Amino acid sequence: MKNVLIIAPHPDDETLGVGGTVAKFIADGNNVNVLIISGHLPPLYTIEAYDKTVEEALSAFKILGIINYNFLKIPATMIGDEPIHVLNKKMNDVIEETEPDIVLTCYPDRHIDHQQIFQSVMVATRPVGAGKKIEILAAYETLSETHWNAAHIEPNFTPNWVVDITKFIDVKLQALACYKSQIPEFPGPRSLEAVEALAKFRGTQYGFAYGEAFHIIRMKS
Amino acid sequence: MKNVLIIAPHPDDETLGVGGTVAKFIADGNNVNVLIISGHLPPLYTIEAYDKTVEEALSAFKILGIINYNFLKIPATMIGDEPIHVLNKKMNDVIEETEPDIVLTCYPDRHIDHQQIFQSVMVATRPVGAGKKIEILAAYETLSETHWNAAHIEPNFTPNWVVDITKFIDVKLQALACYKSQIPEFPGPRSLEAVEALAKFRGTQYGFAYGEAFHIIRMKS
Amino acid sequence: MKNVLIIAPHPDDETLGVGGTVAKFIADGNNVNVLIISGHLPPLYTIEAYDKTVEEALSAFKILGIINYNFLKIPATMIGDEPIHVLNKKMNDVIEETEPDIVLTCYPDRHIDHQQIFQSVMVATRPVGAGKKIEILAAYETLSETHWNAAHIEPNFTPNWVVDITKFIDVKLQALACYKSQIPEFPGPRSLEAVEALAKFRGTQYGFAYGEAFHIIRMKS
Amino acid sequence: MKNVLIIAPHPDDETLGVGGTVAKFIADGNNVNVLIISGHLPPLYTIEAYDKTVEEALSAFKILGIINYNFLKIPATMIGDEPIHVLNKKMNDVIEETEPDIVLTCYPDRHIDHQQIFQSVMVATRPVGAGKKIEILAAYETLSETHWNAAHIEPNFTPNWVVDITKFIDVKLQALACYKSQIPEFPGPRSLEAVEALAKFRGTQYGFAYGEAFHIIRMKS
Amino acid sequence: MKNVLIIAPHPDDETLGVGGTVAKFIADGNNVNVLIISGHLPPLYTIEAYDKTVEEALSAFKILGIINYNFLKIPATMIGDEPIHVLNKKMNDVIEETEPDIVLTCYPDRHIDHQQIFQSVMVATRPVGAGKKIEILAAYETLSETHWNAAHIEPNFTPNWVVDITKFIDVKLQALACYKSQIPEFPGPRSLEAVEALAKFRGTQYGFAYGEAFHIIRMKS
Amino acid sequence: MKNVLIIAPHPDDETLGVGGTVAKFIADGNNVNVLIISGHLPPLYTIEAYDKTVEEALSAFKILGIINYNFLKIPATMIGDEPIHVLNKKMNDVIEETEPDIVLTCYPDRHIDHQQIFQSVMVATRPVGAGKKIEILAAYETLSETHWNAAHIEPNFTPNWVVDITKFIDVKLQALACYKSQIPEFPGPRSLEAVEALAKFRGTQYGFAYGEAFHIIRMKS
Repeated sequence: MKNVLIIAPHPDDETLGVGGTVAKFIADGNNVNVLIISGHLPPLYTIEAYDKTVEEALSAFKILGIINYNFLKIPATMIGDEPIHVLNKKMNDVIEETEPDIVLTCYPDRHIDHQQIFQSVMVATRPVGAGKKIEILAAYETLSETHWNAAHIEPNFTPNWVVDITKFIDVKLQALACYKSQIPEFPGPRSLEAVEALAKFRGTQYGFAYGEAFHIIRMKS
Repeated sequence: MKNVLIIAPHPDDETLGVGGTVAKFIADGNNVNVLIISGHLPPLYTIEAYDKTVEEALSAFKILGIINYNFLKIPATMIGDEPIHVLNKKMNDVIEETEPDIVLTCYPDRHIDHQQIFQSVMVATRPVGAGKKIEILAAYETLSETHWNAAHIEPNFTPNWVVDITKFIDVKLQALACYKSQIPEFPGPRSLEAVEALAKFRGTQYGFAYGEAFHIIRMKS
Repeated sequence: MKNVLIIAPHPDDETLGVGGTVAKFIADGNNVNVLIISGHLPPLYTIEAYDKTVEEALSAFKILGIINYNFLKIPATMIGDEPIHVLNKKMNDVIEETEPDIVLTCYPDRHIDHQQIFQSVMVATRPVGAGKKIEILAAYETLSETHWNAAHIEPNFTPNWVVDITKFIDVKLQALACYKSQIPEFPGPRSLEAVEALAKFRGTQYGFAYGEAFHIIRMKS
Repeated sequence: MKNVLIIAPHPDDETLGVGGTVAKFIADGNNVNVLIISGHLPPLYTIEAYDKTVEEALSAFKILGIINYNFLKIPATMIGDEPIHVLNKKMNDVIEETEPDIVLTCYPDRHIDHQQIFQSVMVATRPVGAGKKIEILAAYETLSETHWNAAHIEPNFTPNWVVDITKFIDVKLQALACYKSQIPEFPGPRSLEAVEALAKFRGTQYGFAYGEAFHIIRMKS
Repeated sequence: MKNVLIIAPHPDDETLGVGGTVAKFIADGNNVNVLIISGHLPPLYTIEAYDKTVEEALSAFKILGIINYNFLKIPATMIGDEPIHVLNKKMNDVIEETEPDIVLTCYPDRHIDHQQIFQSVMVATRPVGAGKKIEILAAYETLSETHWNAAHIEPNFTPNWVVDITKFIDVKLQALACYKSQIPEFPGPRSLEAVEALAKFRGTQYGFAYGEAFHIIRMKS
Repeated sequence: MKNVLIIAPHPDDETLGVGGTVAKFIADGNNVNVLIISGHLPPLYTIEAYDKTVEEALSAFKILGIINYNFLKIPATMIGDEPIHVLNKKMNDVIEETEPDIVLTCYPDRHIDHQQIFQSVMVATRPVGAGKKIEILAAYETLSETHWNAAHIEPNFTPNWVVDITKFIDVKLQALACYKSQIPEFPGPRSLEAVEALAKFRGTQYGFAYGEAFHIIRMKS
């Protein structure tokens, strides 16, 4: 049994990026924790907007089997407004409490929150202290953010790890469908059809029907 | 009206990689030439195997509307066996004859033929002589080859140009279905489902329903 | 006729980076908008210093044929001092108002303003909403900033698009000469001689006499 | 129990690159196969020179616990002299026979044999056919070759996986000491002291005392 | 005689990163200045903690022969809290006062202070004004920070310059031993054993016994 | 006094790439050797064509002050036709005979000869044996080859070293003018005007009037 920590910038990223892998980890008897850092909070959004996404998240969590989760509630795009050491401290506390063997985080991409969270995760998962126990640190891709990094200027996602989610693609899509406020109709860039297509593309290039792709940053054994 | 030259290592690459774009270019009244460099020829394959793929190619060409094509018939994996200047000469002759405005070629990937053809195309399309007329030189992706380059060691495909093929995805898939000897069942890495999924992924991340992706190497205007 | 949006961090960048291309676009009957984000403003500079550069800019615009422009007047090096979402909002408003087909922006280079503006442009030009209409998003090079990025650590400019400005090199140099307060004598890194040399280098390597070079980030068709 | 395949260009690379990991895999009850591709053979070397290295290899294998091995005996620097499909066929046969879960190969570096073997391994381990079973494909570093790639031109080794070999560093160094004809005195670039130093550097940066570092190319689960 | 400027984020980085090179430069009669930017200062640390490291630094400086140094005393992780132009101004003043021929700075790595200082150094060393005199600008590596950058996402250190410190490895390790509050026991990532191992690895791969490695950013002659 | 070895694929590359640096090295009293590897020889060219370029080379050498040179006379584009170890042996012999402190070689670019020579130089200059004495190994740029590498796929030249050739630009251009059979009129990509423009661009971005740019691969001191 492994402790798995999923770090999601906003509610829906955990399902969009790693929903199938989470369902698989849980089905295999592992202990999964989900940490949601930010969200559509005041002052840029209403608290109702935020509460709506939390409600949708709880429905999605139920479908995926997630029972351990935590919402840090930092307003979206304002992560950089508090001192770096404050976010780093919160991230570090989570690592110390959950003692993860596997950490899956967002890729540093088009969304400024993703970049700042990525930096903070990299600090908190250094192979010292609580970080020493981590066996795999990897970044997942987020449709409609990761592939909007500037080609050949900013880092461009190329996977070196794909998880077979063939048995969990249906569960993933059901969970994602809970996020009514976030998921657009096809051909929206994070529509259910786009999500399914990415899973099929990643899967078939690795020998599966459906897969979720990762960039392994650090693995130890 | 533009002259468009498609360079395909083997029969089926032209449909797999750029079938939708070709159909669109033709529908828009452009002049498209397809150059097939190699194929499953003796001594590694039987001539019957090769003839079968040519027959399939001609069916696919019909569906896509391709009427100008040329088969160089160099045996697969043996492109490097003849002196470099011989392949370069053939490639150069094609550029001089077809005077392309747009050249679409394979990406230098897992298949050794793709690497050697890429090198030769890069020589033939230098912005001198006949090459001066070329407005766009770009490389397309080939499922089950391009994404098998070693992650973070060999070049990894990141597109900077996507063509909207929403109106031509059906034609592309019909043409591809002609290659019965080459196209496996799902979840094969170049199955019709995988091809459709890639088109949906590329398209939705650029604002379309379906797209074909390219890496622009050189554009002038 | 295309709508073209030029995003310049400070007055003179638009002429230095894309003066020839702008003159060519206008000569070809396109609609060009220039957005100047920042400038030598108080508290680090006097308002007189800023007004001087605006006056020079207006002279340069006249020579290039620019009639649509906008000065956002954010003090230089202080772009990061206001919340990210504020700059992003301003940038987004400009995209919505001007509905550009082509966006040409600065490369993320040695100048901190260039980096922050680049990030903001990348957000505003995402292929959703008003961004969906954009056909080409590309970054230009700025002498004495772009080539001062740390070699092999920070992104290093390599062009994949060059515009033939042979007929407009004279106009470009005349416009640039208006910026008396900004353009040093040879061998200054953004002297007229250096600018002409870069144009000759970029042009001759693409088959022209003089050219302006770009890094295409995203193109769709 | 996993099947592990180690691909070594020449006798000593297996010990130099992955001796500690091999000893650990064997100690943990896994099945390890070592494939030695080339060697100091005629015409560039005498057969006695080659036999000497094989004798040394067998002593080293004994210490590491290797009982399954295979010497392909292709003369050093002449791997490119036979047709590509011949080496590819041999490599493919080995994959089909050994059915590996884990493949550890050389990095494409300064030695031309390493580059050509790397290419061939990449073909043989594609996620189709026998390759579908492979869970991890990774490249190890070889002192005095890998770090002689041209900085920032050729691929430069950066690990994303380190194996803790603290308990096996002594065994590794003993095995390496068997290669009297290959291992120079300190400060030779592949001296025992250099090898131990690299293990200490890689280990301490990952939270261990001694480690062996890898570049994961493809992992699936 | 050359003027050499060493830029260290915190006390101990100068010894850890370039202690041997500093001792060698001084032994060869050059003029070395050390600039320590930050440190373990309030509010995150006590002033006693900081004073302790300064005391240790002075002992280390004595051993290395450093007599010219300057502590800017900006609290650790808070470098980004003051406006960019303030740090840039301080950095620029130091360049103007010390007129360096050679500048050795930290690599932009896992520690946020290193990233921000690197940016500021890049601005202050531009080849204009006082920066014009600089012959070599290079970045050194810092154990337990530099190698914790995300593999293949953030810049990964690959040296293109190694200084032979064989005669100065003992002095370096003695000086480093002064930092009792900072240097952990083996296998700590910046233990004396790890530092010695890195020097041995870098040295032997360049033809020396011990070396310190650099990434040359800009050299002129 | 330093021993400097210039490795040029074909006659004219030494002047085009490093003519100013060579003249400067000689003026400063260093010992410069020029090694010309290949040339326009039969069977692809007539011997008269080759003799013409040698004659032009000798005139250019006279102007630059080169008195030590060697023509290996391997037919152009056929360097790969002889076994790798043969070219490597020749290259190694030259390194042993000339005992260079500084080696300046071509960049691995569009011309296949440049790629193969680069590989061979990298082997011959390894920091062992005669290679141990080398202090600087760097690659120069060659107009109309280096900048024709595929953008963001193949290595793209970014300099980290520029030599001030302000006093030698006239001599360089005079020497280059000797190659009447090779140097086209403006705007030809290696016309005198293009060469001068590149020197002005490289120089002004480093604080000079005219410069020649290099990519340092390995430096030791």
